[in-house]
Amino acid sequence: MNQPPNNQLFDVYFTAPAMRQIFCDHGRVQGMLDFEAALARAQARVGVIPSAAVAPIEAACKAQLYDFQALAQAIASAGNSAIPLVKMLGKVISATDAEAERYVHLGATSQDVMDTGLVLQLLAAVELIESDLRLLTDALSQQARRHAATVMPGRTWLQHATPVTLGMKIAGWLGALTRSRQRLRELRPRLACLQFGGASGTLAALGDRAMPVAQALAEELHLNLPEQPWHTQRDRLVELASVLGLLAGSLGKLGRDISLLMQTEAAEVFEPSAPGKGGSSTMPHKRNPVGAAVLIGAATRVPGLLATLFSAMPQEHERSLGLWHAEWETLPEICCLVSGALQQALAIADGMQVDEGRMLANLELTHGLVLAEAVSIVLAQRIGRDRAHHVLEQCCKQAVAQGRHLRAVLGDEPQVTEHLDANELDRLLDPSHYLGQARVWVERAVAEHDLLNA
Amino acid sequence: MNQPPNNQLFDVYFTAPAMRQIFCDHGRVQGMLDFEAALARAQARVGVIPSAAVAPIEAACKAQLYDFQALAQAIASAGNSAIPLVKMLGKVISATDAEAERYVHLGATSQDVMDTGLVLQLLAAVELIESDLRLLTDALSQQARRHAATVMPGRTWLQHATPVTLGMKIAGWLGALTRSRQRLRELRPRLACLQFGGASGTLAALGDRAMPVAQALAEELHLNLPEQPWHTQRDRLVELASVLGLLAGSLGKLGRDISLLMQTEAAEVFEPSAPGKGGSSTMPHKRNPVGAAVLIGAATRVPGLLATLFSAMPQEHERSLGLWHAEWETLPEICCLVSGALQQALAIADGMQVDEGRMLANLELTHGLVLAEAVSIVLAQRIGRDRAHHVLEQCCKQAVAQGRHLRAVLGDEPQVTEHLDANELDRLLDPSHYLGQARVWVERAVAEHDLLNA
Amino acid sequence: MNQPPNNQLFDVYFTAPAMRQIFCDHGRVQGMLDFEAALARAQARVGVIPSAAVAPIEAACKAQLYDFQALAQAIASAGNSAIPLVKMLGKVISATDAEAERYVHLGATSQDVMDTGLVLQLLAAVELIESDLRLLTDALSQQARRHAATVMPGRTWLQHATPVTLGMKIAGWLGALTRSRQRLRELRPRLACLQFGGASGTLAALGDRAMPVAQALAEELHLNLPEQPWHTQRDRLVELASVLGLLAGSLGKLGRDISLLMQTEAAEVFEPSAPGKGGSSTMPHKRNPVGAAVLIGAATRVPGLLATLFSAMPQEHERSLGLWHAEWETLPEICCLVSGALQQALAIADGMQVDEGRMLANLELTHGLVLAEAVSIVLAQRIGRDRAHHVLEQCCKQAVAQGRHLRAVLGDEPQVTEHLDANELDRLLDPSHYLGQARVWVERAVAEHDLLNA
Amino acid sequence: MNQPPNNQLFDVYFTAPAMRQIFCDHGRVQGMLDFEAALARAQARVGVIPSAAVAPIEAACKAQLYDFQALAQAIASAGNSAIPLVKMLGKVISATDAEAERYVHLGATSQDVMDTGLVLQLLAAVELIESDLRLLTDALSQQARRHAATVMPGRTWLQHATPVTLGMKIAGWLGALTRSRQRLRELRPRLACLQFGGASGTLAALGDRAMPVAQALAEELHLNLPEQPWHTQRDRLVELASVLGLLAGSLGKLGRDISLLMQTEAAEVFEPSAPGKGGSSTMPHKRNPVGAAVLIGAATRVPGLLATLFSAMPQEHERSLGLWHAEWETLPEICCLVSGALQQALAIADGMQVDEGRMLANLELTHGLVLAEAVSIVLAQRIGRDRAHHVLEQCCKQAVAQGRHLRAVLGDEPQVTEHLDANELDRLLDPSHYLGQARVWVERAVAEHDLLNA
Repeated sequence: MNQPPNNQLFDVYFTAPAMRQIFCDHGRVQGMLDFEAALARAQARVGVIPSAAVAPIEAACKAQLYDFQALAQAIASAGNSAIPLVKMLGKVISATDAEAERYVHLGATSQDVMDTGLVLQLLAAVELIESDLRLLTDALSQQARRHAATVMPGRTWLQHATPVTLGMKIAGWLGALTRSRQRLRELRPRLACLQFGGASGTLAALGDRAMPVAQALAEELHLNLPEQPWHTQRDRLVELASVLGLLAGSLGKLGRDISLLMQTEAAEVFEPSAPGKGGSSTMPHKRNPVGAAVLIGAATRVPGLLATLFSAMPQEHERSLGLWHAEWETLPEICCLVSGALQQALAIADGMQVDEGRMLANLELTHGLVLAEAVSIVLAQRIGRDRAHHVLEQCCKQAVAQGRHLRAVLGDEPQVTEHLDANELDRLLDPSHYLGQARVWVERAVAEHDLLNA
Repeated sequence: MNQPPNNQLFDVYFTAPAMRQIFCDHGRVQGMLDFEAALARAQARVGVIPSAAVAPIEAACKAQLYDFQALAQAIASAGNSAIPLVKMLGKVISATDAEAERYVHLGATSQDVMDTGLVLQLLAAVELIESDLRLLTDALSQQARRHAATVMPGRTWLQHATPVTLGMKIAGWLGALTRSRQRLRELRPRLACLQFGGASGTLAALGDRAMPVAQALAEELHLNLPEQPWHTQRDRLVELASVLGLLAGSLGKLGRDISLLMQTEAAEVFEPSAPGKGGSSTMPHKRNPVGAAVLIGAATRVPGLLATLFSAMPQEHERSLGLWHAEWETLPEICCLVSGALQQALAIADGMQVDEGRMLANLELTHGLVLAEAVSIVLAQRIGRDRAHHVLEQCCKQAVAQGRHLRAVLGDEPQVTEHLDANELDRLLDPSHYLGQARVWVERAVAEHDLLNA
Repeated sequence: MNQPPNNQLFDVYFTAPAMRQIFCDHGRVQGMLDFEAALARAQARVGVIPSAAVAPIEAACKAQLYDFQALAQAIASAGNSAIPLVKMLGKVISATDAEAERYVHLGATSQDVMDTGLVLQLLAAVELIESDLRLLTDALSQQARRHAATVMPGRTWLQHATPVTLGMKIAGWLGALTRSRQRLRELRPRLACLQFGGASGTLAALGDRAMPVAQALAEELHLNLPEQPWHTQRDRLVELASVLGLLAGSLGKLGRDISLLMQTEAAEVFEPSAPGKGGSSTMPHKRNPVGAAVLIGAATRVPGLLATLFSAMPQEHERSLGLWHAEWETLPEICCLVSGALQQALAIADGMQVDEGRMLANLELTHGLVLAEAVSIVLAQRIGRDRAHHVLEQCCKQAVAQGRHLRAVLGDEPQVTEHLDANELDRLLDPSHYLGQARVWVERAVAEHDLLNA
Repeated sequence: MNQPPNNQLFDVYFTAPAMRQIFCDHGRVQGMLDFEAALARAQARVGVIPSAAVAPIEAACKAQLYDFQALAQAIASAGNSAIPLVKMLGKVISATDAEAERYVHLGATSQDVMDTGLVLQLLAAVELIESDLRLLTDALSQQARRHAATVMPGRTWLQHATPVTLGMKIAGWLGALTRSRQRLRELRPRLACLQFGGASGTLAALGDRAMPVAQALAEELHLNLPEQPWHTQRDRLVELASVLGLLAGSLGKLGRDISLLMQTEAAEVFEPSAPGKGGSSTMPHKRNPVGAAVLIGAATRVPGLLATLFSAMPQEHERSLGLWHAEWETLPEICCLVSGALQQALAIADGMQVDEGRMLANLELTHGLVLAEAVSIVLAQRIGRDRAHHVLEQCCKQAVAQGRHLRAVLGDEPQVTEHLDANELDRLLDPSHYLGQARVWVERAVAEHDLLNA
């Protein structure tokens, strides 16, 4: 019985260590054992099994007592992880208390054990993600305020447009994450549900003590008792996955923006640097966005994994074969990828480096054309909208054709200078005076964040 | 300028007509025009444009005035549908009121028009889906109660397990749909948001009247004013899509179950029949599940479409190219597929035909083996669990080896008959006495449904 | 019987007109009718039906004779398009020749008609795609040669690296497309297969004339006779889809590169301009990449559609329900999206505008650092690799710290000037002298292209 | 530096051990080291480095010399696995030969190492898959021949249709796999390509010795020299993945059929049984399809993973960030899942258990109706097609209404018995006489298989 070789070379890069602690062989086994221990306690409370059986069962419900390799081998015959684990559990209990062994797993089916164990793991994962999201949104909130007046080019279709602020861009990232924090709160009661139905979901084997046991079991595990077992109704799990997918997408957007801003040609915002991080010995100017790569990578991988979970929803009758199996490694992988993206986003949010001078320089790349709109609006108040629009259009064309700055062209145009003096023109051509509601957007996003934290 | 030929041969089968009325050229254009009309009203209220301009603008904001083919051609040059529509709109207004034409679309950008128009379409789609879901869950609720005592084989891994009831199975379908109704309610305030930001999202062109206009515009359209424009933060849209994906999956589960129950070998539950529906002239016994095919088809197609939307989330800077475009046809397609599935599910829920006799016959296919557990539990109370388990195991093996019914084998086994008389054995081998909490599951699902309706 | 409203506003932008002519209601119906006409001819040749029946049947096999709306309605009851079409066909024939009507569709099943009709459509689509690919690769081949010496910054991780040529970049696009042309050739014989099996695939209804009819039918349609009917073995179709997916991905790469090069900050290569194309009235400098948006859009949408087709492969027994249905609109959509991307790519390949001056200017953005490697290699031959590496590292750091050009720093460093004179240094710092095999890569890609064309 | 805990509990079930040996930390590191060793040999052959450097470098290119955990940590800073591995490699060489260390990795870039190493792994994976496919198709070929006359119900839309044979069904599975074996052969030369381009893909650092080194390196590794480096042209990799996807789908179809045939109600074909495999202690009749679950699971998971790879194709410029990263774990996962499915399919193909009696019994479930077509055809030759069709339709309706067997109804119908005597009717109602070309389909699939093996 050989152990399969490890396959985790990219784990540290793509997954937060704390999430890997949750989704690992130990975590999965412990989740199942937590179910078995709680079942024993619940059944003792209700009087289905003797109280004396509880302690020996609980003592055996420790993942470190089990040989995961032997378990893995047995899974391949059994078709699930609960059948062989319960057998092993029985043996461990028997070794100390043969009587207690008889009271293990009564009335439960394999999927009860696996699903409830999974829910316990997922709740831990959600807690970790919420905690990281709290840190991340706090950091973004601070950065948005710090850079509320940091002017930079707006970019639509990857072309310069009217100016924006870095704070407003960061507030956009913040807003999306705040909404997903809200979504996680809303789904939690649906997710935090016991799975307990026995062979076909009726709990028939427990007779009239079924509901008391089920209720006690839910209490023991701090889970809700669902309207019925959900062995083949998987919407609860897929809902969580889809909110994680929203997070991956929103973090991917953050990573996309950062990677574009780090381009040699833009060079406005940078991931924090660290010795050996993203550098290149042969090209000392390089600052490879190794964090953004994780964000974009997760946003690229999660959609396919999500599609798998949605595809696996039409599960047959009272228990599926194949579709259920498709979930086992897919849902944890989504949690892991999102955790890794959060970890990198947090580092970026905390330590991003901003080159305000470069932003101002880049704002000049179009020689003032991005501010033609600002001039046109004011001029329209003096000479009418149509004429103002026409004059500006001519001036812009001239500026492009002659390679001159729009300010200079405007200053030479009597139809303009008659109505706008040099100071006024300077002001209109100053990006920091054409930021509209940028500051308001920051305030509103921060307010929503603060409200959620409150 | 030739019109592309139609491509809607399967539309009637896969899409509800009412949903196609929402998502069609007319619907999309009207959504955009509704934005423009509301913008004029809002700007007049705030004093940005003269009140006299409103009526001519509103009069021109009727989709039927526009040539969709010419628009389609222009879209291919413009790269979006708003630029050419606004041009056409200007011409229509000018034809009656040249002055009013100057007050159209002030301060808005193309994506403001397209996104807000889309949100209006989506809210209509959500309303339609909620209404169909109400009808469907009402029907399922009734059927669940009607069949609360209709016994049928439980099936796990597509193998017979202990008995269940049809009511409980239907209640399972109901429960998942009820949860998604709840989800739709929760997401609605996030979805129902105005898009209004101007060129780069700052609303700079409107100066200090930007916020009053934005607020008035949101009011006019009965939309919320978001924390900032969301041109490249698409989580609102993808959240809706993912809840529609949960619906598709839950309906696919219903369709999967129906199609399996309609199998010639099972023949327990059928889609309602109708003249010409799913029949075969050469094979008169056939009842092709043409409704279930739509449910399974939608559940197969929606996950891939969803993955597209999640993949398209990391949109660049202040406006994306390509990723935004990937949404345009994908999100409507999801709405249409889900509407078609709902339509078929409703027909099935209303008219399903149930063969209770066949269910009872099928329960006998394993010659009583599915009830061995029931006997074992009672016998255990008399002779101890280990011995009871051993006796039953022997009897089951004997029943299989000899092709006899378990009842007969048990009746011949002194270790059994000593403790269980013939009446007791008959009762234990009767599936309707081993249904556990099946009725409770029905009650709980119906109660959740009623609560949501209340 | 109301027609569903049109939903094709983005068709012109996203789909080539010639492809829409193939995949439309008319095209689909004609494909099915072509099967029926060929079946009549084949059965007459073999003597299964009288020769006199052929002409009336053929006369009725014209799509324009049929009411597609009525057909669409009937599809929703029948669950496929062939049953109602064959009924309508029968009526059309009867109207002129009641006897001939009896000889229609003999021995065939609905899926034979639909699948063979689809294969005929797909072969037309492949021909169109191959023809467009020929034009596109010819154009790219010319551009690669034209720009074989056009120097531009290499970019890795979106950071400047050592220089490349535009020709080499174009040759990369060309190479991928050439390989997919080869793939299309290889799969063609697998795809071009008759579907003909009758009710369960055995052709039993045709008795001992089954194989002669099948062979004659395949001949009539210029299709191969497969090893058996493939009603539930869909690998042929999905293989085609996956090669189209490779094309979408390769074209998406082209679009991604173009959109990045068109950035205001880079401004090196542009889509061809046209009046009204991608412009912005308020921002005259903008050149929105409206063609690249289609390429990126297709590359974003096709993967999800492909996943649907792969997910739909495990079709049940001799005919699937739901999974088969999931193909009907999905596979044509992939063809349409790829056709639209090809159309845009062709326009870009033909008319791309190149700013060589801006490339040279951008090469200077790192003040020579991207060529440090070039100096280091030559210096190493004079003073040893370790020392050369150390000297260059110091000079690079100094250049960065002092904001000077590397050439200037090197010119001031005695350890360098002792071994490399000014001319040599100038030459080493000239990007056009550090292009390695760039020209060879162009030649090799063009040679592969020429070979395939030969 | 803590090792992340293992996460491989389902590895044995879902992945073939031999494939895990290829795709594991050791395998990945060795692939990269094989590149470095071959590069040293190639450069020594061409005279770029001294021959004496080769032996020390080769001696250090053994994966077991490296600390994978330390490597994993370093990857998280470097953003790829090659930079830190080359550093470690340098240290290992220096320990024995400081001079040789200077000749490692000359002219190569990180992605050269990673991609070429991956290609070597993938070629090993393809070899393993081809070998398993050979075994599997041999077994299916034998089973198809063995069961060429094993009659069973045909099933369309999960409803009984005219009879088929098990051999024909197996031949369908065989045919699809044979085609994918052919596809693997066709793609191999495209896949088996060296990646070697240096920093930006030009190999500039190697000057005029670049091509000789590249050619020697390709020879050393038995790889083809591509037309140019393919750092951001990923079609070769995605093509392989898509053919693996076709395999997953075809195997999923096999698993789907097996799982449906194993249903308690059908019970015609079974996976081989083994002690503890798929059994249930409480339900001794159960034969859970634990192998089919793996086939269906893989067919459900691979499409999403494939979509990820297709989505990741539009990689930026000369090296991508994020999209390239998205491939690293995804492509190996596809290989592993397909290997696991092959392993289970092989067990099923070798040991499937067939209940021919049950097939015959199931053929009677429709009381002869599935053979109405057979009678109709012969009767038509006697009394004309229209009349025959009418008579049969009436008899079928009567049979259904009265719950009688069609044979009995026909025997009582004078319009039938006048033309068909009892023997003839018996024969027409015998499914084994209405199998059409079922045997021919087996022969043709086996012939294609034999041809490929030849």
